[in-house]
Amino acid sequence: MDETPFDASDDDAFHDECGVFGIFQRQDAARFVVLGLHALQHRGQEAAGIVSHDGAQFHVERHAGLIGDSFTRQSVLESLPGHAAIGHTRYATSGGGGLRNVQPFFAELSSGGFAVAHNGNITNALTVQRELQRRGSIFSSTSDTETILHLVATSGARHLADKLIDALSRLEGSFSLVGLSPKTMVGVRDPLGIRPLVLGDLEGSPILASETCALDIIGADFVRDIEPGEMVIVSESGIESLFPFQKRKSRFCIFEYVYFARPDSHVEGRNVYEIRKRIGAELARESGEPADVVVPVPDSGVPAALGYAQEAGIPFELGIIRNHYVGRTFIQPGDAIRHMGVKLKHNANRRMIEGKRVVLVDDSIVRGTTSQKIVRMVRDAGAKEVHMRIASPPTTSSCFYGVDTPETSKLLAAKMSIEEMRDFIQVDSLAFISIDGLYRATDEASGRNPHAPQYCDACFTGDYPTSLTDLDAADNVRPLSVLGGNV
Amino acid sequence: MDETPFDASDDDAFHDECGVFGIFQRQDAARFVVLGLHALQHRGQEAAGIVSHDGAQFHVERHAGLIGDSFTRQSVLESLPGHAAIGHTRYATSGGGGLRNVQPFFAELSSGGFAVAHNGNITNALTVQRELQRRGSIFSSTSDTETILHLVATSGARHLADKLIDALSRLEGSFSLVGLSPKTMVGVRDPLGIRPLVLGDLEGSPILASETCALDIIGADFVRDIEPGEMVIVSESGIESLFPFQKRKSRFCIFEYVYFARPDSHVEGRNVYEIRKRIGAELARESGEPADVVVPVPDSGVPAALGYAQEAGIPFELGIIRNHYVGRTFIQPGDAIRHMGVKLKHNANRRMIEGKRVVLVDDSIVRGTTSQKIVRMVRDAGAKEVHMRIASPPTTSSCFYGVDTPETSKLLAAKMSIEEMRDFIQVDSLAFISIDGLYRATDEASGRNPHAPQYCDACFTGDYPTSLTDLDAADNVRPLSVLGGNV
Amino acid sequence: MDETPFDASDDDAFHDECGVFGIFQRQDAARFVVLGLHALQHRGQEAAGIVSHDGAQFHVERHAGLIGDSFTRQSVLESLPGHAAIGHTRYATSGGGGLRNVQPFFAELSSGGFAVAHNGNITNALTVQRELQRRGSIFSSTSDTETILHLVATSGARHLADKLIDALSRLEGSFSLVGLSPKTMVGVRDPLGIRPLVLGDLEGSPILASETCALDIIGADFVRDIEPGEMVIVSESGIESLFPFQKRKSRFCIFEYVYFARPDSHVEGRNVYEIRKRIGAELARESGEPADVVVPVPDSGVPAALGYAQEAGIPFELGIIRNHYVGRTFIQPGDAIRHMGVKLKHNANRRMIEGKRVVLVDDSIVRGTTSQKIVRMVRDAGAKEVHMRIASPPTTSSCFYGVDTPETSKLLAAKMSIEEMRDFIQVDSLAFISIDGLYRATDEASGRNPHAPQYCDACFTGDYPTSLTDLDAADNVRPLSVLGGNV
Amino acid sequence: MDETPFDASDDDAFHDECGVFGIFQRQDAARFVVLGLHALQHRGQEAAGIVSHDGAQFHVERHAGLIGDSFTRQSVLESLPGHAAIGHTRYATSGGGGLRNVQPFFAELSSGGFAVAHNGNITNALTVQRELQRRGSIFSSTSDTETILHLVATSGARHLADKLIDALSRLEGSFSLVGLSPKTMVGVRDPLGIRPLVLGDLEGSPILASETCALDIIGADFVRDIEPGEMVIVSESGIESLFPFQKRKSRFCIFEYVYFARPDSHVEGRNVYEIRKRIGAELARESGEPADVVVPVPDSGVPAALGYAQEAGIPFELGIIRNHYVGRTFIQPGDAIRHMGVKLKHNANRRMIEGKRVVLVDDSIVRGTTSQKIVRMVRDAGAKEVHMRIASPPTTSSCFYGVDTPETSKLLAAKMSIEEMRDFIQVDSLAFISIDGLYRATDEASGRNPHAPQYCDACFTGDYPTSLTDLDAADNVRPLSVLGGNV
Repeated sequence: MDETPFDASDDDAFHDECGVFGIFQRQDAARFVVLGLHALQHRGQEAAGIVSHDGAQFHVERHAGLIGDSFTRQSVLESLPGHAAIGHTRYATSGGGGLRNVQPFFAELSSGGFAVAHNGNITNALTVQRELQRRGSIFSSTSDTETILHLVATSGARHLADKLIDALSRLEGSFSLVGLSPKTMVGVRDPLGIRPLVLGDLEGSPILASETCALDIIGADFVRDIEPGEMVIVSESGIESLFPFQKRKSRFCIFEYVYFARPDSHVEGRNVYEIRKRIGAELARESGEPADVVVPVPDSGVPAALGYAQEAGIPFELGIIRNHYVGRTFIQPGDAIRHMGVKLKHNANRRMIEGKRVVLVDDSIVRGTTSQKIVRMVRDAGAKEVHMRIASPPTTSSCFYGVDTPETSKLLAAKMSIEEMRDFIQVDSLAFISIDGLYRATDEASGRNPHAPQYCDACFTGDYPTSLTDLDAADNVRPLSVLGGNV
Repeated sequence: MDETPFDASDDDAFHDECGVFGIFQRQDAARFVVLGLHALQHRGQEAAGIVSHDGAQFHVERHAGLIGDSFTRQSVLESLPGHAAIGHTRYATSGGGGLRNVQPFFAELSSGGFAVAHNGNITNALTVQRELQRRGSIFSSTSDTETILHLVATSGARHLADKLIDALSRLEGSFSLVGLSPKTMVGVRDPLGIRPLVLGDLEGSPILASETCALDIIGADFVRDIEPGEMVIVSESGIESLFPFQKRKSRFCIFEYVYFARPDSHVEGRNVYEIRKRIGAELARESGEPADVVVPVPDSGVPAALGYAQEAGIPFELGIIRNHYVGRTFIQPGDAIRHMGVKLKHNANRRMIEGKRVVLVDDSIVRGTTSQKIVRMVRDAGAKEVHMRIASPPTTSSCFYGVDTPETSKLLAAKMSIEEMRDFIQVDSLAFISIDGLYRATDEASGRNPHAPQYCDACFTGDYPTSLTDLDAADNVRPLSVLGGNV
Repeated sequence: MDETPFDASDDDAFHDECGVFGIFQRQDAARFVVLGLHALQHRGQEAAGIVSHDGAQFHVERHAGLIGDSFTRQSVLESLPGHAAIGHTRYATSGGGGLRNVQPFFAELSSGGFAVAHNGNITNALTVQRELQRRGSIFSSTSDTETILHLVATSGARHLADKLIDALSRLEGSFSLVGLSPKTMVGVRDPLGIRPLVLGDLEGSPILASETCALDIIGADFVRDIEPGEMVIVSESGIESLFPFQKRKSRFCIFEYVYFARPDSHVEGRNVYEIRKRIGAELARESGEPADVVVPVPDSGVPAALGYAQEAGIPFELGIIRNHYVGRTFIQPGDAIRHMGVKLKHNANRRMIEGKRVVLVDDSIVRGTTSQKIVRMVRDAGAKEVHMRIASPPTTSSCFYGVDTPETSKLLAAKMSIEEMRDFIQVDSLAFISIDGLYRATDEASGRNPHAPQYCDACFTGDYPTSLTDLDAADNVRPLSVLGGNV
Repeated sequence: MDETPFDASDDDAFHDECGVFGIFQRQDAARFVVLGLHALQHRGQEAAGIVSHDGAQFHVERHAGLIGDSFTRQSVLESLPGHAAIGHTRYATSGGGGLRNVQPFFAELSSGGFAVAHNGNITNALTVQRELQRRGSIFSSTSDTETILHLVATSGARHLADKLIDALSRLEGSFSLVGLSPKTMVGVRDPLGIRPLVLGDLEGSPILASETCALDIIGADFVRDIEPGEMVIVSESGIESLFPFQKRKSRFCIFEYVYFARPDSHVEGRNVYEIRKRIGAELARESGEPADVVVPVPDSGVPAALGYAQEAGIPFELGIIRNHYVGRTFIQPGDAIRHMGVKLKHNANRRMIEGKRVVLVDDSIVRGTTSQKIVRMVRDAGAKEVHMRIASPPTTSSCFYGVDTPETSKLLAAKMSIEEMRDFIQVDSLAFISIDGLYRATDEASGRNPHAPQYCDACFTGDYPTSLTDLDAADNVRPLSVLGGNV
């Protein structure tokens, strides 16, 4: 799997949709948000937004592109004064409404201003939106975050926290949310805890962030994970914790371990890099194959390949070199060249491959087109045998909890058996880690509990832990017609 | 008076805030809106927006800058398909909220989508906005047009026209409005008819526009003015006319004749150029002075100067030449130079001035700084005498009906007597047209009726024809705090 | 004639190619050049360049677009320190080589650095360029100014002034040139003095400029015209004047009076506005016609129309209103609309035209397409009769001295008799001023001396005052092949 | 060592200055050059240029930024038609003259057009430039490539190849050059062969490229290295090889193996990745240390770390994670934050480091500031011991052959002993590979031959293999004064 699309027709990857970060009681708060979002850039590269509060007023900036390109200009930073700020970085599907859809969203409530951003996806957002429109609410975006905000705005409750509980209680799906009011910063995780959210501390300044790597970048301490179903309210008087939703068994997204989270992050108490190495080791045990060299598809396949190599006792080598300079706008120069098998991002390191039996380790297969190209390249470099090992089970179902997945009909594993896939990508052998093997790698010694799965693994099993109201009410899901232009 | 600001500190001019244009039942409707807005560019140069409807969907584009620079690109035009479209061009004070404030505004109502744009100013918009926020409405801009739209969205009426009547009935101030729904184009003028709005026809396609010059540019016919208090509903079945508001005596803005409207427009049945010439003639009669040459301050002073010259029998000459290349971004290059009396926009045509008694004709005096510079330049060019004649009465009060005026304390005429002003701008004599003379020039033979003035002339008389609720409730008028950034 | 092109296919105008400006011994010299070039913007709007010298080093900035948009940014001004600077603004034909062709040009000579810019056109530049290339000179542009610079660089003379005299002596055509070396500012006019160049003074700081309006903008005094064939060398020790070329009778471009120069400029001792008025008066005498109103095609036709009206005793009215907001990039929105007779720049002021016999006054006819549109518009507005009067003789020949003219085959007057032209543009009568009338308007009481014409009038007469070597050696004139891209 | 600067003050890295690529007899040649340059992007990221020839004309495009951002737009590609093209990508020091300095350079010679680009640095370029200026050559850039071109242009030889030999014979330093004339593509390497240049073949179309990875990206075959001192002339009749310069013993840059070349390239017959692994193994043998984990400073330290780990039998782990999203413009947000030890690009993977004895492997130390930060980060993550191993000898001298090195006084190893450096970067032990160890890793079994070194290793030894004329004639080396601006 490969995380940077060259062009729309070749988008063979999953994309997490968001990272969030907030900091409270800290001078120049927005500058820390910039750094935090930079550390979360892998969770969304298309656009970002920051809202700060300076004690009197809110300030908003939204920009397309990488944090490092858009939010480090002096003029932008100076437009975001204040001691509290929250931010959001997102992956956007092309044509998705422009900057209007960039979070955080803001509203002037009767209780004062309130800004909110979240990572996740509300699966009944459009249904609720239609109800709100009938009572006179006007939406300026297609983002489900605006639905949250409208529910907050129209809640009959008196205090902001109660309004927010009111609002979130009406919603299904996943949300790891940060909010900012003139007096408080709020963090909430949905009852299943599908997406991550952690609490940190920088010399007394509380922080909320999607992953611990966003604490590390500014030298902040990790305090703890926000619990599934927990709401924390950060104010001058400290951090209050509530559990306002009906208690449910947690279902953290297991794909965060496989691919989304950064390897140096600690997520739900576990080091991501280490789990990935263990996945590799499980793979080696489940489907080892005599070989001369273990080669990762860089960068995401590296930890699993290291684990595989160590477990199997086969040398680990960088048999494929990745070009990181692809940039944000690379367009393949012309149809005539497109079909020549151009290797924009990966190149075989022929010396490490020629004449060898190669175990290729990748994290997942989406449409299969990238795997096809990679295998052809490795074969062209002289590999004697190519054995593909995948660090996740076959992905057979779309995600509705905040990951941009191709529709099911485009997922290779939804259309083919493993043998058909092996034939499609032209390898000598193909194996995926088993679902139990994956669970074991995350410390669940006895594997998946089919009666009460420990994780959300819907993309592998089709077992969705929430209702999918909008999907079921298909004729309600039409997004607002007007917001296709430059608005 | 001088209509292009060089920089914020030298903004010595009034600015009309809007022009509107809509066309119905016309292929490529948006392209005609582009041309119509171009003809209305003098009513606002900062930004523009167009909404089209293609039978199924609405499309929106908003861009900063001149129509000719932003809306003539192929990609923009192709983003606005359909047989019906409305548009808006505006003057924005710097820092006024970015593109979020650019009209038209759009909402998905229970009755379907609805877009609206207006020329004017709602004087109780913020008060109503606070009420709407208390019931849960979320505002995404500081524009009073969004207030109109929220009132429409929350109206209990069933049909769009009734919702709109409901909404407008709650508002004070001035509005000449165009709206677009999937089936109709709507035009409304406030009961006083403060701002202009005309109905046109292009080979059967109905048009609404602020001025007739926007009909001329596409060769459309002028049908009639929309009446004060009238609502027209344009649909496939024709044009329906309603008068839903309480009947009031009309109070058209007399300054439209003096300065805002284009000289080639017919406004409320009268040719603007001709009125301006008549103002000049009145001036010559009221305050004629022996002189050798009549010189306009170009471009806006030209018609009045022609009228003055013809009436007084004194030669009319272009004694001041205007440089039209100033561009949108000219910044005076440095403080050292600022005080040298640099003549970026006007230059004396010395040969026409040297040794002569000069009558200078301008349309108005705002802060007086431009007049000072012009007079100094004319004196430096060797004028023997300089007599300034102003084609409007002294402007002593701010406008709250859609004109960007400096606060009263910055208006020269609010601070000084005519003799003091004469001394301030250093002329041998200074005269303004009388308020009765101005009315006479507009065909009101007996001048102003003080008991029932025929026009809105609040800027000259302080006689505001509506309540100014927001102004009176000063602590309510704070705009939304968040929208100062790039949102 | 109409000076702003909407698009390439509708470019019905002449374009002067350059304005030059230099100032010496003045703090922040470049800021004065910015202002001077702004005043000369009518001589070229496509791009500009400035070179300053700070006592030790030269500094260069070149930018596309209007001076006011490109050269007033703080960062640009700060990049041009020093007490001496020269600048250039130019009209560029599309595709003409990008910023590489923007003057001034600079070279490091054995005698030190030297920058040069000129207004005019060298008619043997390509021929000389081929010779220079044969001896090893490398050209980085297609500008004839670079040819001048290479001749200077390869001159065997020891001193800069002698090198420059050497270089210019080998060239034919027209040049009004400013140069800057570490110690001197130089001004030169070609022996015929085809293009203007004046000497000014700002509190002791010498100035060279194309027109006096560039002195007025900064309050500088006009000292005198640089003479045809004169070279002035401005240094700390004063201003030295030389006449190094063979003496010839002057042949100033008479079209500068008709159209190019700004009306407030004094050119060769005469006020341009006054000459234009006199041309109008001559026209009235030569080809007067009973009429109700005299209407200029704005803006360039205004002075001649005023002169015509005064001489003929017919009222002058702004029967056509010009929209100055066309901007630099207006593209007509679509073919479907193109042929509707859209009036982007001019609109008839119907009230002044309807039912009247109209005398339309314009400065020239190039291709005739603009005249056609204007006349159709005036007729559509209800004119009873339309009589077109042109303030120049028929333009039958291309200019090779610095004016961008369509090739001869595109010039209406080269293809048609006056009666055919009258029919083509559909007027009741058409008259051009006679060549003798034009000369009389410039104070040449007895008209044109056919044996020794007082002006260059080649565009009207085909009588070119210099050789046209490049034109004659047609196969040498291919410009450098490489410079079509973005270099 | 760390290859992407965050800001000017923190530029702790070496930068190679160029990559070159050319292809002949191939439809849409420029598109292949785009891909080739993309594969060479690690050799220069600031700007790039391509020249194509379409059989009749040359075409040029030069753009700032990454190939993938600037050269893949349709409009750019369509501006470069033809069957032959050469290109160049470069690293530019800030303020280095803008696009004027971007290669290839082009000149119209008496023999026809000629474009040229090179990788390397001419050490007597300024001295020769001064001579050329004295004879009248005008330089438009500060690039030494333009000096080459002027020598070609002024050569008395009749044929292009002879002119080029003439020119290059007068120059000192390093150059791996590609040239394009209407009929030929030329490749030349300087007599010492300091920079690489390879010959490839794509289905019969000859290719010249800096590295083999640029062949791989388009599936071209590697034919052979161009020899030191060799000139190849590619034409329709085939590939001609000449050795026109005095024969010298080759001195290939050994730092290409250490850092510059891509690990998947074959350079001078050797796989770069493999040499880097062997350097790591040598390091382990020379200065092994008991430890728990071997951690590379990513990305450049990875192969050496793998080699070290395999040789030492210590686990290799990604104990430092690199954030590749830094982007081109990241500016650290504010001084207040700068000194907090922000980790924009690298983060410790705490779990792999805490409580462990860590061997850190990096490729080189330049100023030492990056090493300081990395070590502090690793210590903060809980490392028990930190041992730094460097895959090159101490860099004590600047490079004058095409690498952007800080001046000697900024090189840590030029100022400090190893013990002082160990103290400065605060590690428990510090070791560099020995110069002989480095040579051994490149297959030179007996190490460096001090009487006839096999490589250029001047940066480690100060033993420069050519004269440094410009450096010695220090007062001649002032670059052209004018070219600091936007020209």
